[in-house]
Amino acid sequence: MAVNLNPPASLEDVPGIRIGVAAGELRYKQRDDVCLLEFPAEASVACTFTNNRFCAAPVTVARSHLSKPGVRFALINAGNANAGTGSRGMDAANRTCEIVGQLGSVSPEAVLPFSTGVIGEQLPLPQFESAIRAAFDDLGQSSWNSAAAAIMTTDTVPKGLTRQFTLDDRVITVTGIAKGSGMICPDMATMLAFVTTDAKVSSHHLQALLSDLVDQSFNAITVDGDTSTNDACLLVASGESQTAFEPGRLGWDELVNALSEVFLTLAQAIVRDGEGAEKFIGIHVTGAKTRDDARAIAYTVGHSPLFKTAANASDPNWGRILAAVGRAPISELSIDRVNLKLDDVYLIRSGEPDPDYREEEGKRVMSQPEFNVSIELDEGDASASVWTSDLSHEYVRINAEYRS
Amino acid sequence: MAVNLNPPASLEDVPGIRIGVAAGELRYKQRDDVCLLEFPAEASVACTFTNNRFCAAPVTVARSHLSKPGVRFALINAGNANAGTGSRGMDAANRTCEIVGQLGSVSPEAVLPFSTGVIGEQLPLPQFESAIRAAFDDLGQSSWNSAAAAIMTTDTVPKGLTRQFTLDDRVITVTGIAKGSGMICPDMATMLAFVTTDAKVSSHHLQALLSDLVDQSFNAITVDGDTSTNDACLLVASGESQTAFEPGRLGWDELVNALSEVFLTLAQAIVRDGEGAEKFIGIHVTGAKTRDDARAIAYTVGHSPLFKTAANASDPNWGRILAAVGRAPISELSIDRVNLKLDDVYLIRSGEPDPDYREEEGKRVMSQPEFNVSIELDEGDASASVWTSDLSHEYVRINAEYRS
Repeated sequence: MAVNLNPPASLEDVPGIRIGVAAGELRYKQRDDVCLLEFPAEASVACTFTNNRFCAAPVTVARSHLSKPGVRFALINAGNANAGTGSRGMDAANRTCEIVGQLGSVSPEAVLPFSTGVIGEQLPLPQFESAIRAAFDDLGQSSWNSAAAAIMTTDTVPKGLTRQFTLDDRVITVTGIAKGSGMICPDMATMLAFVTTDAKVSSHHLQALLSDLVDQSFNAITVDGDTSTNDACLLVASGESQTAFEPGRLGWDELVNALSEVFLTLAQAIVRDGEGAEKFIGIHVTGAKTRDDARAIAYTVGHSPLFKTAANASDPNWGRILAAVGRAPISELSIDRVNLKLDDVYLIRSGEPDPDYREEEGKRVMSQPEFNVSIELDEGDASASVWTSDLSHEYVRINAEYRS
Repeated sequence: MAVNLNPPASLEDVPGIRIGVAAGELRYKQRDDVCLLEFPAEASVACTFTNNRFCAAPVTVARSHLSKPGVRFALINAGNANAGTGSRGMDAANRTCEIVGQLGSVSPEAVLPFSTGVIGEQLPLPQFESAIRAAFDDLGQSSWNSAAAAIMTTDTVPKGLTRQFTLDDRVITVTGIAKGSGMICPDMATMLAFVTTDAKVSSHHLQALLSDLVDQSFNAITVDGDTSTNDACLLVASGESQTAFEPGRLGWDELVNALSEVFLTLAQAIVRDGEGAEKFIGIHVTGAKTRDDARAIAYTVGHSPLFKTAANASDPNWGRILAAVGRAPISELSIDRVNLKLDDVYLIRSGEPDPDYREEEGKRVMSQPEFNVSIELDEGDASASVWTSDLSHEYVRINAEYRS
């Protein structure tokens, strides 16, 4: 099902971070569905959340707790999103933080809750509480691979990556896990990502870095244009390596590169495992006046159902791509300066069909499970990339026919 | 296939307007595919075109001709969009205007060309010229029903409506035809609408009126969010009734009402006959701060593939609707003041599930071929409606599997 995506090889521990998992049977049977991450007191913690105003109770609680210093735990559950659950849902989210706080002898505000799963059902608190206790007892005994599996909902493949580099003879580790956008039953609606490192980074620099990283990764993917109610991305620097990193200093670029690779790989994994995805497509816009313009065009193509169904059929239908470019919400664009390529094959030059183009060539490129669409604008120097999947029968089947 | 849509009953002639049709075999065999409309010299003519920058040659030519007074003919062909055809396509569009101009003894600038059909193929000029001559010879002998059939591409049902009213013992007629958004082979990409009346209206008032009418009709529908390269809507007032209409004067409201009904019915007919449409859905947002906000929310729901697949499955999945409301690009919204109704059934009150709601009720509403989603915001007095279809297997099949 997933496009060129395998379960991660062994994910490396991140010094300073302890992991516990447990089976709460919140929705799934006979598998772990609760995960607890513990961070040291000196860790820096940054997080971004969905912009959706219809956000879940745990998002509201986590946002509030994050505004205070001293975050020590992340509590994650799969199977129930605790969204659309009103004041009872808020009480439940707060209660789970209290439980972790009591176990860990910290205040409830030191706990960030994350939920993913069905919208509109109340959390089964007694069951959840037992699982939280079991996960707490398990702290330090489980691996990132177990954590990656425990946070899955309708993902078909667990998602994770480790990158390491050496600075002053010390190995610095970055390990991240994510879960994707399977949105069924009725709304397994969440992208969640947790990335940690033992680098030492100030909270201030960490939050700025997270914004940049998310901008180039999780904010540059689309399966169907629908933003979930629970999306969140957490970045924690445990500082356990005792090696401090700062912009402009030695090692910063290596850290950013390692993090970038982890973020981008996780984000792309979510698209590869997108609902009904049969193709993985990069859309690259270059020569735009501004990055916002480039991104608007890339997203307009990436969201176009006409382009996505053509991609599903390996149909090099350039009319649909140019029509999407032409309607992108940007202020100015000359179609007669646009070039269009599928991988290395030019279809359009200066807004007109390339006389050397042969449709078999376009079809060959689009028949691959992965290909790139390049749109060259000749208007400026800005660029942007977006990754998306095709629109398949399977997408309609999953989203129309399934419901718990 | 089409949702509650039948071919129009007999469409009434509009005094002053002559119609000719012909079979040019530009793409289809054994059917009319060229239509010529002739207007009297004193007619007022207004037109709106696609905002797509990748617009077809005839759109560029028609826009330019419309900027001069004295439009006398509209020439429409189905089967070839003359889009993505470069300078040869521009030459061809201009040539067709010359041919009509010569036949009608007017300048080429008095002719507006409209094309719909395949993108990226050159117009077969010699064939087209014969058909133009045949349509010219036919002027005055064909009906609006023939015209509605001649402009179809992948529409499954011809679309037209007549409304009449009486002012000072004179019958005033409004008749319109349209064709829709069947976008196959590879891009039968065009919404075209032609509405005419024998009312006498100044060009200035007619253009302003057209903007309002389109705003409430053709700009309030979506099948898949893809804007075509050839979309156009023409409004002609022949003046033949010798009855002058002006805002604020007697009869103006009646004229606006008749035109509004024709515009809205044609626009909705396009959605009813949308690709793979099995449901016809009205999305009504009330209580918004501004009309732009209301429209943004209605369109975000109407474009959401998750909502549209749930609609296909008659699944009252309110989480998907609220999630779409929550991510709509507006500046401010309190989800905890939102009410949500399916027809007359409340699902959500003040952002939470209505305790009296039973899912069978929601399912009953959504099982109908037509239903309404009402989103009440409690933020202000502005409202907007959008009409859309569901997302079905058939949509994917048509757009992925078909190609000429």
